Amino acid sequence: MISEIPVEEYQKRILNVQKILKEKDIDIFVTFGSDAEPQNLIYLANYWPAFESGCVVVPVVGEPILVIGPETKTFAQDYSRIPKIRQVLEHRESSEPNYPDAKLDTYEAIFREALQGKKPNRIAFSGLTITTLPVYEAIKKAAGKAEIVKADTIMIDLRMKKSENEIALMKSSAEITMKSFEAMKENIRANMEEVEVVSFVAGEMFRNKAENLAYTPYLLSGKRTNQAIGRASHRVIGKNEPIQFSCGCRFGNYSSSIGRPFCIGRMPEDYRRLVEVGVEAQKVVLGTLKAGISAAMVFKRYWECLEKADAKRFFLYGPCHGTGIMECEHPFLEANSDYVLFDGMAFQVDIFLGDGNFGLRFEDGVVVRDKGVEEFTPNYREVIEL
Amino acid sequence: MISEIPVEEYQKRILNVQKILKEKDIDIFVTFGSDAEPQNLIYLANYWPAFESGCVVVPVVGEPILVIGPETKTFAQDYSRIPKIRQVLEHRESSEPNYPDAKLDTYEAIFREALQGKKPNRIAFSGLTITTLPVYEAIKKAAGKAEIVKADTIMIDLRMKKSENEIALMKSSAEITMKSFEAMKENIRANMEEVEVVSFVAGEMFRNKAENLAYTPYLLSGKRTNQAIGRASHRVIGKNEPIQFSCGCRFGNYSSSIGRPFCIGRMPEDYRRLVEVGVEAQKVVLGTLKAGISAAMVFKRYWECLEKADAKRFFLYGPCHGTGIMECEHPFLEANSDYVLFDGMAFQVDIFLGDGNFGLRFEDGVVVRDKGVEEFTPNYREVIEL
Repeated sequence: MISEIPVEEYQKRILNVQKILKEKDIDIFVTFGSDAEPQNLIYLANYWPAFESGCVVVPVVGEPILVIGPETKTFAQDYSRIPKIRQVLEHRESSEPNYPDAKLDTYEAIFREALQGKKPNRIAFSGLTITTLPVYEAIKKAAGKAEIVKADTIMIDLRMKKSENEIALMKSSAEITMKSFEAMKENIRANMEEVEVVSFVAGEMFRNKAENLAYTPYLLSGKRTNQAIGRASHRVIGKNEPIQFSCGCRFGNYSSSIGRPFCIGRMPEDYRRLVEVGVEAQKVVLGTLKAGISAAMVFKRYWECLEKADAKRFFLYGPCHGTGIMECEHPFLEANSDYVLFDGMAFQVDIFLGDGNFGLRFEDGVVVRDKGVEEFTPNYREVIEL
Repeated sequence: MISEIPVEEYQKRILNVQKILKEKDIDIFVTFGSDAEPQNLIYLANYWPAFESGCVVVPVVGEPILVIGPETKTFAQDYSRIPKIRQVLEHRESSEPNYPDAKLDTYEAIFREALQGKKPNRIAFSGLTITTLPVYEAIKKAAGKAEIVKADTIMIDLRMKKSENEIALMKSSAEITMKSFEAMKENIRANMEEVEVVSFVAGEMFRNKAENLAYTPYLLSGKRTNQAIGRASHRVIGKNEPIQFSCGCRFGNYSSSIGRPFCIGRMPEDYRRLVEVGVEAQKVVLGTLKAGISAAMVFKRYWECLEKADAKRFFLYGPCHGTGIMECEHPFLEANSDYVLFDGMAFQVDIFLGDGNFGLRFEDGVVVRDKGVEEFTPNYREVIEL
């Protein structure tokens, strides 16, 4: 069992980026990451910023550079698989400390260093949807006359096909998540507040050596189950009412997640019908996914299943989204998706149904293989009454 | 004991923004927030986005609007103290789902609605350091010929003076954090991995009804203590070696934090000397803070204390930063700070010292009063040997 990606795999990832840069006639590649959106920095450098943000700068030839904020040098040195680390003010935390005496770099100097004295000509930029304005402006200034090309697909494409090491870490992560789900199931009682139940889950995750939560676990009870995404609140959980539970952790920097609806006591009839549709839809999607099938076909099978159960009006979105370092990453699988699935893609099969009053989410991680999927969290896909 | 800010206080906050807009001749105010940087949305709307981002739009006269992403309507409806909610694609999560059939709004329509049909003339924008590019560009497009004025100070100034309700929530939050620190102290053992210890802390926080972690609790052992900011790792904790522990939670949407260095067994002599400097410096700063004193004077006293202990070379930054909804918010108190402290400001007194080999952070929350400070976490400010 591995607990992290080997160093050589990071080096290979950098070489993969450089190969693409050469093909596309680009001299330098920049990708942004933050505490909340660390995916590309983790992928290329094993660096998950804390409080601050960062970028990885990859020249078409030569050494990559990890760019961080003023406060995290020793932290970055401990984790980064990219030895060269530089610090700029624009990656500071949002409360904007000044660090009056800190010796900091600029993106001008960093580009010069990466390109061994040359000025950039074409810069490929990845992560525009998450980049903050000060960082983007610093890079634009440093670009001078160089063209900045939006290049999100470079990282998306590389990250979409998981290596066997990545899949191993995702499985370990899912095992911890499954244990946390069981801990929740064992310990939840009516009359607890929703937030109290999170205690069992978060405790179990770290006890099993997860490095972090994939997101704050959430338990939504009663009418609150109609929230597709939610947060546990101070609401007191009742007997015989719908409960929606979702949790996930990070292990070896890879995320996992499980979502299940259930009841303490007897499930109300309306909700049971909704849950039964969810169980069936989840099974149909899981049974359809395999290498070589089109995303459109997967959606079609899902849609037919809802149609057959007279449940199309319960649809919010889905039925799948990519997963890996982040619990939710490219690609989504939706009504208008038009790609073909391949071996090594990882998805969360993620079905949210709501009848206006109540809602549910069935969610399970899988990796796509030639003849179907390997499931990460196959248990409790049923009507659960505790 | 309150567990949330009363509705009337949210209404007052909106009126305060509108008063400033009127004074500054601005027709409309926009402030951005995300899952990781929710501060301004929580302050004005009690809305903490999950996965997606959002904005609050406040016209100089009339009803404010909460703008959210495509997936979180029922969630926002449950929390938002701003009744009018609109959805735009640009606030979607970073994995960029398309939501093919969703009925969404645009910022053009939202500005028109907020201004009752008029076009904006001057837009004040708050949160540029955290705003993502797609949201900023959507707003710029909707602005048309209107001027966009950077207006971070509007929210910073309003949030800097805490109300008694805010202080009450911060105290409750700090009590939970203190209990979690005690749980860590009781349960930690040599030979555990750093991440395992987080289990006791996170478990205790949610058990005591915290809604979330203020940040992922971190425990750094041995040489890793030299990381000013860090994450717990799989390193196995030894006896008689430096350990640095920091944790904090959120309760009623307000954050708290505590930081302490300690040892399991006997503290090495070098580290003990560093800890003793930290204890003394923390006491000096805590004893200096009060309404009416200048930030420059607080820094001076801190600096003199380090000088006296021949410890200036151990300085990284500090000694204080603002706190409230976020564990770390404006203002920082640094060498070049030039404001005067006032009643109701809240700080984390936050001292990081590192001798090159090892480091420590003493951190405690306080609220500034006329004659000094009220301390939130006054215990264990000493050499701790378990």
